[in-house]
Amino acid sequence: MPRRSGCPINLTLETFGDRWSLIVLRDIMFGKARTFRALLAGNIEGIASNILADRLARLVAHGLLSRQGDPAHSQRVIYSLTEASIGLVPMMAMMGAWGLRYRSPSPELGIRARLLEDGGPELWAAFMDELRHLHLAGPEPARSVMGELQTAFQAMSRGETV
Amino acid sequence: MPRRSGCPINLTLETFGDRWSLIVLRDIMFGKARTFRALLAGNIEGIASNILADRLARLVAHGLLSRQGDPAHSQRVIYSLTEASIGLVPMMAMMGAWGLRYRSPSPELGIRARLLEDGGPELWAAFMDELRHLHLAGPEPARSVMGELQTAFQAMSRGETV
Repeated sequence: MPRRSGCPINLTLETFGDRWSLIVLRDIMFGKARTFRALLAGNIEGIASNILADRLARLVAHGLLSRQGDPAHSQRVIYSLTEASIGLVPMMAMMGAWGLRYRSPSPELGIRARLLEDGGPELWAAFMDELRHLHLAGPEPARSVMGELQTAFQAMSRGETV
Repeated sequence: MPRRSGCPINLTLETFGDRWSLIVLRDIMFGKARTFRALLAGNIEGIASNILADRLARLVAHGLLSRQGDPAHSQRVIYSLTEASIGLVPMMAMMGAWGLRYRSPSPELGIRARLLEDGGPELWAAFMDELRHLHLAGPEPARSVMGELQTAFQAMSRGETV
């Protein structure tokens, strides 16, 4: 019978459960998707709708997402990152860096991971400030890391060198 | 139907599948366990023997562990980290740092995560050199990060402040 443990690595892994939770956070973090419909349509791994619904509920229950009704559409729910999930940016950057080095990502999907790794803690902090602006009504930062990543991704998608 | 994708974060997550693979790597990395029996007996989360067997095979298949027979015991197999799994040290450090900040780890299990985070890339590189020495017959480094972590863990376990 598995036991709980107070190991911080285990507690982090227990919070997610499986890869789909982190995939959903990735899509919200880097892809700007904020609704169930946008997350389902935009996910490149083809997440199933029941899995998406389950992981969104799980992420809300664990304090990694918050949900708000959209005043303009009574049936639409908007998901926001929390301080805890924004705090995952460095771990996401390290996951991407590892995949980049030891797996074979596609060049256009790998470029963002490369920029995140190369930018280091300074770029992560700027990206986290931008996410706080977009999700937690924090002040608008001068630098848009998301814009930089998107520009590089689009250039790679057109076959240009970045 | 889930699709493959070339996203480096997804490729990293796909490699592990679930948390038990990373728990097993954690035990080999920080706990020095190298055999099935030592991993089963030493795991504080109470991993089941069939799950341990499955994840060890999966980690070998993905190139994150190698297995060697022990010349002294014909039935005993010793597992070693590979360059790819040693490359997970920064990600493990970030996972521990997140758990430390946003979950409530026990103080004695949290101390290693705190030292790993505080030490940053310099300490991670020294730890990786030590793991290369222990698992890949690399040269013996002057600094033993594992010794530093173990000393701090034991002091915390005795109720001392580190």
